[in-house]
Amino acid sequence: MNQPDNDVLAAVRFDANGLVPAIAQQHDTGEVLMLAWMNRDAIVETLASGRVCYFSRSRGGLWRKGETSGQVQHLKELRVDCDGDTLLLLVDQEGVACHTGRRSCFFRAVRDGALVEIAAPLVSPEQLYGAHRHG
Amino acid sequence: MNQPDNDVLAAVRFDANGLVPAIAQQHDTGEVLMLAWMNRDAIVETLASGRVCYFSRSRGGLWRKGETSGQVQHLKELRVDCDGDTLLLLVDQEGVACHTGRRSCFFRAVRDGALVEIAAPLVSPEQLYGAHRHG
Repeated sequence: MNQPDNDVLAAVRFDANGLVPAIAQQHDTGEVLMLAWMNRDAIVETLASGRVCYFSRSRGGLWRKGETSGQVQHLKELRVDCDGDTLLLLVDQEGVACHTGRRSCFFRAVRDGALVEIAAPLVSPEQLYGAHRHG
Repeated sequence: MNQPDNDVLAAVRFDANGLVPAIAQQHDTGEVLMLAWMNRDAIVETLASGRVCYFSRSRGGLWRKGETSGQVQHLKELRVDCDGDTLLLLVDQEGVACHTGRRSCFFRAVRDGALVEIAAPLVSPEQLYGAHRHG
């Protein structure tokens, strides 16, 4: 483990499950793409490889974003918040971030008194995964 | 409780503590300001009042952002992610979001192998709070 990993890991306050929420934001447009979780190993791997790796709570293991779908997130910068309990990942998202085939996971908004979809899928989930589920 | 609240609350998957993470993003610049947590009451109050109200995990109660510091967040739009387990709040932030006096809580970044501060306080915490702590 090299020095930046030590700096970062010392600054991060992991929760009782050893996880910290990580916000992925497209580095140039500012679009918030998704939120997922990271453990220590996911942070170390992401910093070492430059490709974002999360921890999948549903699968209970490392989740290399795009390993199934090809929708890789290239890390541009990793930031830590004031309390150390949230990360912000500035990324360059290949294709779409959301497993529904939309660019961002935040495609539902409260507008005029109703929760409505504000973005359509750019690709079909079947194209992304076949029978798989994770991004 | 009116209809949009019902729509939203039905779409949200609260965690075992009855909470959901909420990302606050400045609506016009795209800057990610902070991440905090909301419970059902915080969502209902935020939608009703148009001013962002979180749930403070450290205090165990509703946290009306800016009630002490004056650094209010006006809600522009509330979005729900694909799985319903994260909210994105597009806000108009008065002053600064961070209790350290910085515009954003994400003021530390890994650059050139070290975790460095990339933004300075715009106001002092003493100006914001006196002896208080929450935003």
